[in-house]
Amino acid sequence: MKGPPAAQIAAIDVEFTLDLGGSLPSVSIAYETWGELNEERSNCILVVPAFSANCHARSSDLDPSPGWWEHFIGPGLAIDIERFFVVCPSLLAGCHGTTGPLSTNPTATNKNYEGGFPLVTIGDIARCHLLLLDALNIETAYAICGGSMGAMQSLEIGLHHGRRVQRVVAISGTDRTRPATAAIRHLGRRAILLDPAFKNGFYGANGPEGGLRLAREVGTVFYRSKKEFNDRFAWQPIATPSLSETTFDVQSYLAHQGAKMVGRFDANSYLRLSLAMDLHDLSRQGTECSPVIPKFYIGGVEEDRLMPIDEQIALHEALLASGAASHMAKFSSPVGHDAFLVKHDKIGQFIGDALGKQEAP
Amino acid sequence: MKGPPAAQIAAIDVEFTLDLGGSLPSVSIAYETWGELNEERSNCILVVPAFSANCHARSSDLDPSPGWWEHFIGPGLAIDIERFFVVCPSLLAGCHGTTGPLSTNPTATNKNYEGGFPLVTIGDIARCHLLLLDALNIETAYAICGGSMGAMQSLEIGLHHGRRVQRVVAISGTDRTRPATAAIRHLGRRAILLDPAFKNGFYGANGPEGGLRLAREVGTVFYRSKKEFNDRFAWQPIATPSLSETTFDVQSYLAHQGAKMVGRFDANSYLRLSLAMDLHDLSRQGTECSPVIPKFYIGGVEEDRLMPIDEQIALHEALLASGAASHMAKFSSPVGHDAFLVKHDKIGQFIGDALGKQEAP
Repeated sequence: MKGPPAAQIAAIDVEFTLDLGGSLPSVSIAYETWGELNEERSNCILVVPAFSANCHARSSDLDPSPGWWEHFIGPGLAIDIERFFVVCPSLLAGCHGTTGPLSTNPTATNKNYEGGFPLVTIGDIARCHLLLLDALNIETAYAICGGSMGAMQSLEIGLHHGRRVQRVVAISGTDRTRPATAAIRHLGRRAILLDPAFKNGFYGANGPEGGLRLAREVGTVFYRSKKEFNDRFAWQPIATPSLSETTFDVQSYLAHQGAKMVGRFDANSYLRLSLAMDLHDLSRQGTECSPVIPKFYIGGVEEDRLMPIDEQIALHEALLASGAASHMAKFSSPVGHDAFLVKHDKIGQFIGDALGKQEAP
Repeated sequence: MKGPPAAQIAAIDVEFTLDLGGSLPSVSIAYETWGELNEERSNCILVVPAFSANCHARSSDLDPSPGWWEHFIGPGLAIDIERFFVVCPSLLAGCHGTTGPLSTNPTATNKNYEGGFPLVTIGDIARCHLLLLDALNIETAYAICGGSMGAMQSLEIGLHHGRRVQRVVAISGTDRTRPATAAIRHLGRRAILLDPAFKNGFYGANGPEGGLRLAREVGTVFYRSKKEFNDRFAWQPIATPSLSETTFDVQSYLAHQGAKMVGRFDANSYLRLSLAMDLHDLSRQGTECSPVIPKFYIGGVEEDRLMPIDEQIALHEALLASGAASHMAKFSSPVGHDAFLVKHDKIGQFIGDALGKQEAP
């Protein structure tokens, strides 16, 4: 799977060692940029994607389709591209142009990795982003920003590679995955593994579409909120009750979300990124905090069912206790965990404030 | 699938018309009883099962295995079998001895119904219970008690057949299913439908085990609480991370719950009972409330993720607004929705109080 139309590729021709063992002989990183890097190379903002997103965070002349943070990135917006040089990479082990299961394995077989792609951690994904900063000759980014899995990556870089960023904006993330959240992600992986089309990950062009669809439907229930579903969808059946068809409005919505995943996502990537999130643990053994600690801006949403706001509060308090500068904002949105992906004025303002609207980078 | 060892069978040889159209030429009801019916036939308590339970609510000489309400039914317990004649039937469309997809279709083919079994409603299931009361020559039960789907049946009988019960004890139920809950049940049905072994419901002895397992795993996440999972299971991986094996403790638990469902439950029953719950709506058009209204005892659990306590509060308030006598109790339990299935002293006391410990039936 190639990156989105406007993606550039940074080909990094060095062996990339992985946290869980093994290595990749090289990595290619798909990324897009907006705005101009200043002479001091000090105005870079790294925007990092959540689980299913790619490097197309915003539209451009080359690719005018709306990006996933179109409402936050742009001239005069929270992440102001008249002021900042914004860089968004696709994720390692994903399926949007950066090295992953759909890439050619240059050493072993010269076929695609497919089910042979190794397991990765959030730490690996974060180090891959740093290789891109290296390639762009940027020593220290002004900030890194992300929501959900993007928040995990941002925290990982902020805590373990603190000299590479000055500010960390992490919305709806967590310091470490709880069993209750791992239980949810387990369901999605199970759906893919149970699909006979999965074939241990070696499925060529005929992937486990049913499993991937169901995995996304499970996710959608947790990405959104109870309140949204009850307010938005009809309570009465919209059709004659039936087992195989859609009896309720909300079923159509879930089916639609599931179907949208097919064709734009790869099951092997799904499994690896999902497990990477489960393994996310900023305090795991063997990792050391960076001696240079950036400023943290932690946001959480009251209605979040996937990584509840208690986790962002605990994270913020742990940062303060460790002596870091941390600012916390609590938001409310019927959208729940996914609130950072929709237009939300207070979240936009929080990001803008975190980036210091009045300061020069 | 036969009923549990101690089940008796009431064979009702009359056509049973179904709410959604069609009929069954006859129904057989598997049930168990404990205690003695008094001379006035006034001390019957109907205990009705939740989704996956059967008529074995308590052990007996014939079947000493613990029943699903062993902790609440017995001499001196909340439902005192020295005082009451307790009757528990298996559910219509289920797979525990009462007519369902595994029963022989006596008219059409003389084969099992399987995927040809019609859709049922909670109203149908409730009317089937009333046929059992008829067969036992009991005009009015002293009470009906149930949790979750059992609460739905209890409410259905209390509101639409009010002269058949004096008291309704409904724990963790709802007046009508919300879209957010229908979304959750949709996931479970989807898992079964996606399993190629489902074969449109005509799978003989080789049912969709993988689908049924996953459906149960999805359910388990919502039956229990976030707090329970986070307190009970290890946060660290318990094994080398792997996609197909169990990396986290909580995954073993879910897998175990899923596996337990296979062999003791039928996928066609799962689908029909699941959809019946989605269609549950005490206020639906065409139903009239009974002119005789029993007393209601509504319980809810703060940690419930499937039918949140707001729904029991709304139900209680609607009952009061309609002029009915309703008592409400709020419980707390890390177990969440399933709290009524475990030993919980306050729930036991609530049931005992509802049944009037000091009064003679």
